[in-house]
Amino acid sequence: MSSPLILINAKTFREGMGNRAHMIANAAQLVAHESGVTIGIAPSYIDLHPLAHHFAIPVYAQHVDGFEPGAHTGHITVDAIKIAGAAGSLINHSEKRLALAEIELSVRALQAQKLISVICSNNESTSAGAAALAPEYVAIEPPELIGSGVSVSKANPDIIRKSVAAVHAVNPKVKVLTGAGIQSGECVKIAVDLGTDGVLLASSVVKAKEPAVVLRDLVSKL
Amino acid sequence: MSSPLILINAKTFREGMGNRAHMIANAAQLVAHESGVTIGIAPSYIDLHPLAHHFAIPVYAQHVDGFEPGAHTGHITVDAIKIAGAAGSLINHSEKRLALAEIELSVRALQAQKLISVICSNNESTSAGAAALAPEYVAIEPPELIGSGVSVSKANPDIIRKSVAAVHAVNPKVKVLTGAGIQSGECVKIAVDLGTDGVLLASSVVKAKEPAVVLRDLVSKL
Amino acid sequence: MSSPLILINAKTFREGMGNRAHMIANAAQLVAHESGVTIGIAPSYIDLHPLAHHFAIPVYAQHVDGFEPGAHTGHITVDAIKIAGAAGSLINHSEKRLALAEIELSVRALQAQKLISVICSNNESTSAGAAALAPEYVAIEPPELIGSGVSVSKANPDIIRKSVAAVHAVNPKVKVLTGAGIQSGECVKIAVDLGTDGVLLASSVVKAKEPAVVLRDLVSKL
Amino acid sequence: MSSPLILINAKTFREGMGNRAHMIANAAQLVAHESGVTIGIAPSYIDLHPLAHHFAIPVYAQHVDGFEPGAHTGHITVDAIKIAGAAGSLINHSEKRLALAEIELSVRALQAQKLISVICSNNESTSAGAAALAPEYVAIEPPELIGSGVSVSKANPDIIRKSVAAVHAVNPKVKVLTGAGIQSGECVKIAVDLGTDGVLLASSVVKAKEPAVVLRDLVSKL
Repeated sequence: MSSPLILINAKTFREGMGNRAHMIANAAQLVAHESGVTIGIAPSYIDLHPLAHHFAIPVYAQHVDGFEPGAHTGHITVDAIKIAGAAGSLINHSEKRLALAEIELSVRALQAQKLISVICSNNESTSAGAAALAPEYVAIEPPELIGSGVSVSKANPDIIRKSVAAVHAVNPKVKVLTGAGIQSGECVKIAVDLGTDGVLLASSVVKAKEPAVVLRDLVSKL
Repeated sequence: MSSPLILINAKTFREGMGNRAHMIANAAQLVAHESGVTIGIAPSYIDLHPLAHHFAIPVYAQHVDGFEPGAHTGHITVDAIKIAGAAGSLINHSEKRLALAEIELSVRALQAQKLISVICSNNESTSAGAAALAPEYVAIEPPELIGSGVSVSKANPDIIRKSVAAVHAVNPKVKVLTGAGIQSGECVKIAVDLGTDGVLLASSVVKAKEPAVVLRDLVSKL
Repeated sequence: MSSPLILINAKTFREGMGNRAHMIANAAQLVAHESGVTIGIAPSYIDLHPLAHHFAIPVYAQHVDGFEPGAHTGHITVDAIKIAGAAGSLINHSEKRLALAEIELSVRALQAQKLISVICSNNESTSAGAAALAPEYVAIEPPELIGSGVSVSKANPDIIRKSVAAVHAVNPKVKVLTGAGIQSGECVKIAVDLGTDGVLLASSVVKAKEPAVVLRDLVSKL
Repeated sequence: MSSPLILINAKTFREGMGNRAHMIANAAQLVAHESGVTIGIAPSYIDLHPLAHHFAIPVYAQHVDGFEPGAHTGHITVDAIKIAGAAGSLINHSEKRLALAEIELSVRALQAQKLISVICSNNESTSAGAAALAPEYVAIEPPELIGSGVSVSKANPDIIRKSVAAVHAVNPKVKVLTGAGIQSGECVKIAVDLGTDGVLLASSVVKAKEPAVVLRDLVSKL
């Protein structure tokens, strides 16, 4: 198995914007270097270009529209994030849901530019549905765990295990991220033991006073 | 194999509303009786209740929201269409796209009431994605055939064949409808020969002066 | 001044659907007859046609799409609600928000059929914006009062007073409904004293065991 | 009257992205300096920060969401564009329509940060509705002129004149931009003579081989 991926979603948190985005990316690069674990960041659109050019870690968009360059005022195309230096993009995050056909269009457009697709899903069925679109990753965010502060190990881990099985039944090449309920290195280890290939997380890193300390803990059991 | 399904989508065509909806449903009932083929209709919301109560044919909603009864002004719940007497609902029609999580919610809500789900899709990948949600039917509407007047037999039929294979690879119990490019009984026969379980069509029946004549042709090769 | 309007929004409450919708409409007709006050109902789409045909009170749609009859699967056109017998429609309810251009399109389409437009708004500015589109009514639903159980008289009534002033500054012909915080006849009286032309309410009538009793109270101070 | 504003919308055109965005901004700065006319640019989100920091001309976002910093993955907050150095934002462009309440929220959020709001509208009524929200600018984009290549002078200019009157009847402080049908300096002059305070345009500048040449023509009659 390849190294797990720790993917930090900066959302539109004030603590993950501008200078703070740089500080978090810097911590991610440091801890990735120390640990050998891949750590990526999905910053605000405005930080996409600066971060991708200042740091060696993979930088993701938080969303991407699958259409061609053209008359799409206010949207963000794969063309744009490619120019900005992105490695890939989240798609269909629970805070930015897309229609099924739009998700597919975004995956196809990313693949045409050799960028990585991470489709977010919310349960076993939608994870299987996402896997059918052949992205690189499906990130499962069980609604009962989002922002709950409840560790995936304390909650019923069955939803993760079943989602992994459902994804691989549809397409065994698709990797899975655990997208909620990650508080600590112990949680990351459990997520990997449940068959996932890493984690997608947000506030625990982004709002930390010292993101490097939190990141070192997150990779500590791998 | 069970009998194919001919499902008529009345859209919001003037020719499929009110008295015309009754006339089309009447024709459908007549031809279904003559031929033994199942013929259903998906009328405007306002005709759902009257048609379901006046006719024995299956009546479908054109869309349904998956949430519980409650404060959802302007939406249409499974509870509502069940009370109206619907047999099931289209979901995610190309003219009423839904987010992946919404599609799943609608399927679950329909199944909880033992109603039939028909998820519309637009290509091979999204058909597979739809199948992963375990509806009764996936209706493939290739955009290049929608409203084109081009028969699925004249167009490249590969998209239908591949979509059927993709659906059954994910879930062999899911039935498939050909959702565009159906002009005649010959087209229906080709659609069935390509492995689908029927057709979803609209203007060719709804806008016909004599819907019974068109319907008789559509079932003539089965 | 013309008689105030009491408009009952049945939402998708189970208690406002099917037989219950008939029972509430019946109570509304009775109390309207007794009191001389106009009482209307906005039921689920599936009840629109039956209620409009069984009762003399004005029946409203909860939402309407402004486009012409045609290929709009899953939508509800002015054409459809006109055939169903509707007197008008709510537009842009807080549970079914529309783009500014869509609101305008719905108002125009309703007016072309001589049906009544009730645009919902949420504060002073959006009430003025709604008034600029020249509907018959703007219904102000201050978010802090929606479903709060707090009477508009106990809450700061300034938002209603200022919204009425803002609406009339833009277009003095537009009538205003108080769209939240209505619990009793006292509230209705206050709403009218604040310069509005009636009220839009939901659960207090729809979920009542005896809607007629609640309605009699609502009109008691007029 | 203050100097007219020429606002260039780079959309997601390939010719307005990355290095081309810099080239266009450079041309805008040059011609603004030569002519004394204010020329702004609304680039892709990814170019917002670099352009705002490299050039003295006003840089606008193409869209902004009105909510506070927080859990809004894939959205673009006023906080973000402020950090990026934006002077303001387009709101409700025809390619990114918003609900009425969302438009109002965006205007309020921009004003709280002393940034400039430009609400796009499509006709006389929606221009008045936009003006009721008290933005700095309303940009009228008559659908019949968008991307038509038809000059506003050749088309019926009445829609512009009436929209200006409707906007000023609601709020005389709101300035108006002509948002379509601008091909040349002659068109800009006509737009200003019709009572507007400048123009919003896109492809004629963005796709030009030499944007400076086009811009010099656009300001030539002022």
